[in-house]
Amino acid sequence: MAEAQLINGRADAAVAPEDRGLTYGDGVFETIAIADGQPRLWDYHMDRLLEGAHRLGLPEPPLATLREEARYLARPAGGAVLKIYYTRGVGDGRGYRPPAQPEPRRMLIRHGLPAIPEERWEGVDCRLCQVRLSAQPALAGIKHLNRLEQVLARSEWHDPAVAEGLMLDPDGLIVEGTATNIFAVRGRTLVTPPLAEAGVTGVVRRWILAQAEALGLRVEQRGIRPEQLPEMDEVFLTNSLIGLWPVRSVASRELPVGTVSRSLLERMAEQRLTPLLGQARGQP
Amino acid sequence: MAEAQLINGRADAAVAPEDRGLTYGDGVFETIAIADGQPRLWDYHMDRLLEGAHRLGLPEPPLATLREEARYLARPAGGAVLKIYYTRGVGDGRGYRPPAQPEPRRMLIRHGLPAIPEERWEGVDCRLCQVRLSAQPALAGIKHLNRLEQVLARSEWHDPAVAEGLMLDPDGLIVEGTATNIFAVRGRTLVTPPLAEAGVTGVVRRWILAQAEALGLRVEQRGIRPEQLPEMDEVFLTNSLIGLWPVRSVASRELPVGTVSRSLLERMAEQRLTPLLGQARGQP
Repeated sequence: MAEAQLINGRADAAVAPEDRGLTYGDGVFETIAIADGQPRLWDYHMDRLLEGAHRLGLPEPPLATLREEARYLARPAGGAVLKIYYTRGVGDGRGYRPPAQPEPRRMLIRHGLPAIPEERWEGVDCRLCQVRLSAQPALAGIKHLNRLEQVLARSEWHDPAVAEGLMLDPDGLIVEGTATNIFAVRGRTLVTPPLAEAGVTGVVRRWILAQAEALGLRVEQRGIRPEQLPEMDEVFLTNSLIGLWPVRSVASRELPVGTVSRSLLERMAEQRLTPLLGQARGQP
Repeated sequence: MAEAQLINGRADAAVAPEDRGLTYGDGVFETIAIADGQPRLWDYHMDRLLEGAHRLGLPEPPLATLREEARYLARPAGGAVLKIYYTRGVGDGRGYRPPAQPEPRRMLIRHGLPAIPEERWEGVDCRLCQVRLSAQPALAGIKHLNRLEQVLARSEWHDPAVAEGLMLDPDGLIVEGTATNIFAVRGRTLVTPPLAEAGVTGVVRRWILAQAEALGLRVEQRGIRPEQLPEMDEVFLTNSLIGLWPVRSVASRELPVGTVSRSLLERMAEQRLTPLLGQARGQP
């Protein structure tokens, strides 16, 4: 449950039932790791929030206010997760048509860290989800509030030994996990799906693409078929909370855990990208 | 704005910001016409709500309670619109994964009737939307809370002379309007898109399909290309609030308004399907 929250700057507020965030999923959100009293990868998160607001035609998010409120919620000791929601606010009764003068709602919610078994940073088992991600270039890449495909995909399994489910596009290419981006390494090439038609351009994905050159890796953005995974030297998943999980099996086919994953995990721990990673690496 | 509301049975409640209806669009809704102090087409609305809840794996909606609350909100004099939202409630912090024991939230909101020019029931002008409906069989047909495609489509135009925008599927076939279903008549055949991959199976659509035989019409569920519209004898749009609007042009190509539309409008007025239609037909 929430440790603290600010809704349009107020600690005690609830949300009107007619907020378009609820009635239409008309908004965007960010899930931000808090470590050492600071939100991490803040600029990347804000870049994506801005891009999402722009794509949906929402008013410009108030970045200075968001930063101030995020810092306030990040201050208490201990790692945490900060969720930021930015919706078009209450509609004016005209249905889907956005109000001419929307009064957007911003909601910042601080949660405690989830309990995740440490061995996940050594390697995780994944499945392939039945529900596919539909192709929708108008919404691809941004982190909007229409997430039923992910909810349905995550409802497909209950086995706690399965850490993540991979989702395919209509052509059968892997796009991402339900809550993670996916990378594969083959030789000196780092492969990740392009996300032009489906998926979310994760902030850690962006961070990794920025490290590739320093690691001597060439980046190739292309789809990967499930049957191509065993040809890869290593496969890993990323998001802002976990940092990176190496994948050791997909649908019971074993995959090798490699050196690129380990190098990236070390860099992430050094840069304190997420408080969970610090714990997993033995840093309190 | 809302005239009255009941949220889990309480008149004064607001919504927790972490309701999965807001964070993921994890729920379903209905837009119900109220005429003569009664919600109209109630059984059809509840059938769709049940189907949606079943498809999303939500707990069974409490139909008897919904009926009682809907009747209470329908009682004040005058036509109105009743919105019913049914969400998976507050999450338990595990992300997309639905809680094992969800506490769903029901919200019933009564709105006044929108002001709609009477001439729309004589014929409306439509456009073709740029944003397409993606193909997603897992969500097609039900009225879920992930409605960004409709929001983006409805944002494409501001000209009040354009009453509705038609949305195409990835193959370029017309699926529906942003907030309406579409029908075409050719000879004695009534054509409407099948909605197996996208779109919402409207309650008035169902009502019309049930009238077809009595009107001597054979039903064909198939996609329609925009360029096929001029071959049709008549085209019309339906939803629970407007009842039916004949289409007199799409993207500036004129279409004839025909006798099937007029017969259906008469039947709808007789059966008081919507209070707006009563007004438009001269019934106070």
